[in-house]
Amino acid sequence: MPRTVIIGGGAAGIGAAGGVKAVDKNNEVIVYTEFEDVAYSPCGIPYVHGKEIDDFQSLFLAEKEAYVRAGIDIRYETRVNGIDIHDKVVHVEREGTVRWDRLVLATGFDYADPDVPGSDLDGLYYVKNIRRAMEWDKILDTVKHAVVVHATPLGVEMVTALAHRGIETHLIDPNPWALADVADPDIMAPVEESWREMGATLHFNTDLKAFLGEGRIRAVQTSEGELPADVAVIATHKVPNNALAAEAGLELGSTGGVVVDQTMATSTPGVYAAGDVAELPHGVSGIGLQGLTGSHAYAQGKVAGTNAGGGTKNYQPVYIPWATPAGKWIIGGASFGETTATALGIPHVVGQAQGISRARYFPGVKPVKVKLIAEPKSLKLIGAQMVGGEGIKERADFLATAIKFGLTMRDLASMENVYSPAIGALNEPIVLAATNGVETHGTG
Amino acid sequence: MPRTVIIGGGAAGIGAAGGVKAVDKNNEVIVYTEFEDVAYSPCGIPYVHGKEIDDFQSLFLAEKEAYVRAGIDIRYETRVNGIDIHDKVVHVEREGTVRWDRLVLATGFDYADPDVPGSDLDGLYYVKNIRRAMEWDKILDTVKHAVVVHATPLGVEMVTALAHRGIETHLIDPNPWALADVADPDIMAPVEESWREMGATLHFNTDLKAFLGEGRIRAVQTSEGELPADVAVIATHKVPNNALAAEAGLELGSTGGVVVDQTMATSTPGVYAAGDVAELPHGVSGIGLQGLTGSHAYAQGKVAGTNAGGGTKNYQPVYIPWATPAGKWIIGGASFGETTATALGIPHVVGQAQGISRARYFPGVKPVKVKLIAEPKSLKLIGAQMVGGEGIKERADFLATAIKFGLTMRDLASMENVYSPAIGALNEPIVLAATNGVETHGTG
Repeated sequence: MPRTVIIGGGAAGIGAAGGVKAVDKNNEVIVYTEFEDVAYSPCGIPYVHGKEIDDFQSLFLAEKEAYVRAGIDIRYETRVNGIDIHDKVVHVEREGTVRWDRLVLATGFDYADPDVPGSDLDGLYYVKNIRRAMEWDKILDTVKHAVVVHATPLGVEMVTALAHRGIETHLIDPNPWALADVADPDIMAPVEESWREMGATLHFNTDLKAFLGEGRIRAVQTSEGELPADVAVIATHKVPNNALAAEAGLELGSTGGVVVDQTMATSTPGVYAAGDVAELPHGVSGIGLQGLTGSHAYAQGKVAGTNAGGGTKNYQPVYIPWATPAGKWIIGGASFGETTATALGIPHVVGQAQGISRARYFPGVKPVKVKLIAEPKSLKLIGAQMVGGEGIKERADFLATAIKFGLTMRDLASMENVYSPAIGALNEPIVLAATNGVETHGTG
Repeated sequence: MPRTVIIGGGAAGIGAAGGVKAVDKNNEVIVYTEFEDVAYSPCGIPYVHGKEIDDFQSLFLAEKEAYVRAGIDIRYETRVNGIDIHDKVVHVEREGTVRWDRLVLATGFDYADPDVPGSDLDGLYYVKNIRRAMEWDKILDTVKHAVVVHATPLGVEMVTALAHRGIETHLIDPNPWALADVADPDIMAPVEESWREMGATLHFNTDLKAFLGEGRIRAVQTSEGELPADVAVIATHKVPNNALAAEAGLELGSTGGVVVDQTMATSTPGVYAAGDVAELPHGVSGIGLQGLTGSHAYAQGKVAGTNAGGGTKNYQPVYIPWATPAGKWIIGGASFGETTATALGIPHVVGQAQGISRARYFPGVKPVKVKLIAEPKSLKLIGAQMVGGEGIKERADFLATAIKFGLTMRDLASMENVYSPAIGALNEPIVLAATNGVETHGTG
């Protein structure tokens, strides 16, 4: 019986386990995880902290028994200490040497080490594991001052959550605006304004210098001064958990992620990687990307597992639809924005418009700003950014697909749209933005 | 100075007027309308009746002065009695003979005559004009029993509105389910259930026989018995208001709509038609369609006006994204559903799934059912139907575009989607439906 060993029990690891079993029920599948649980949604944690979701219990997806029934052998709280590519074994804590025919690396990410004095103090919260989150949630009841370190996607969610919870929250980030690696400043401006309305204080162009305190944090030292802190949420950028891969000699990419082909196979025969530890090419720029979403991790895991199990499935270049609540708004987009296109030196033009989500007279109508990024002349879409009140996630899915299939601003300017007062305006904001792009940059 | 005469002041006529002026400010534009107003949203009327919008005033879009400033000469409450193609004049009530260089027919629709005894009684409400709607809204305050005649799109909105308002509402329709020309029975089943929960009574497979009463309606006679009625809402199907066109000898299509080419030009040089009076080919089947939405009418008017004004603009075949609240649900789709595909004899396969709108644990999560209709083997999309709680309008826009650009179920099965607990589930319902289609009907 061929055996697939999977290292990691997150979305990628569980996706891989299911992928193997879908191809061949008789394939033996062992999943190693350092944690107590596998089947829960870590993405929900900020919303429980923000009191938008009642309790952590609802984040659990399946009983452990369900995996037993599916023939997936999960070894909880069990660390894998090394991979031997030559002998096709892993070295497992307590178990010793375990052989594999196929190996899937799904070791995920860690937050980048803040690498400043005081990083060993109590009171630094790395949002990741649900059991730790449950403990931290009790601590948050006693917290008056919180500092969120860096306006990454998690940082954005945590500022929103802590402010919503009523904690006096400060955000520090070295960039001039929030989510600067992903979003344009004009998209983030209304979000930042809404955070201020919610009572949060934002410190941009501000470097982290140290965590201050005796045993426990009492303040955060920044380039612009000291901020009182009962807790510091460390939302630094995600780095791939690549120690095992590096030690085993797998090829790593420019992000530190494991290089994979479209079957999620690594440079080593029989070894696959998926999720936050893997590096994937961006569909437009070809640049290596790492640390995408749980949805990407799960899909990658499924592809890796299918191929590991003897089936055939390809993962395609990513165009990255994304969206998230931020302050009182929803932001989102696909591929990249104007700032990133400029930074990458990709020639581009922009079409943009401020539209609305319903008929202007219908209760609950919300603004929807759409920015489309396109190649000059052909006006072929290469990116999109949005900020608005509703329908952002569905538009982001659409625009990522439009980019993938080569649609142009002209195509979107002439697209039909639903008009129904309670749910859609006469003019779809995407159409308005595309029309603006064609009128401004179309050559006829 | 070239003169464009536009007959009709609805979305198509106003779109056409703007289209002409956008090409050439010096082009003279005269719009004739039988009504007191032009710039309002008739689509909002059911929602005022349903008390979801506070008042009719908010439905007005622009002051009459705005059109004067734009150089558009609107002649209110002025009927055009005839068109002379040969001499290029229209015969206008009170004004006599008025010459034109270009003519745009935007005469809209009427509800099909119920053509049963009692059609001349008071108490039959044809929902169309805002001034009449204001009067009817006062009458509705005194109404105990209402009968809605036919489960057309307007009928669906009016049953929902009247039931929401607390009126005892009966719906009669000759078909076995609501919106049978557009939607599949499984899409409408939850809607019908929710109408019953709202207190409405549904009579399908039921023919209208007569309106009963002396001077004023007191009941509706149906094939299944008599229903008490203080008002009957006549939501029969839309027929093109084609009398002027027919008399002038313009070519009419199978729906009775005026045949137009992609520039919205009719069979007669210099004469254009747009909106509910025009007939357009369906993008998939090529079958003539008429009576689409206000959004279509406005876009068609703009194309007609642009070309009438000396510019160049093409209108493209329609794929008809549609969506509307219905009972406690939102329904929608693009192109056609399973029932229509079967009726048209178009070979097809179906992929479907019951998904959700947010993470399963996030407050406000709603079901989203997606059905995709595709060509056998190629699995190229030809239609879609949905019922759910949110995001239906945006998905309908997306799916209509996907059909237009030839995407397949395979393309949608491997599409990326946003996963963010508050706004999107791990698995996008469209992806689930496409995956089901590929697994059921894909050949490998």
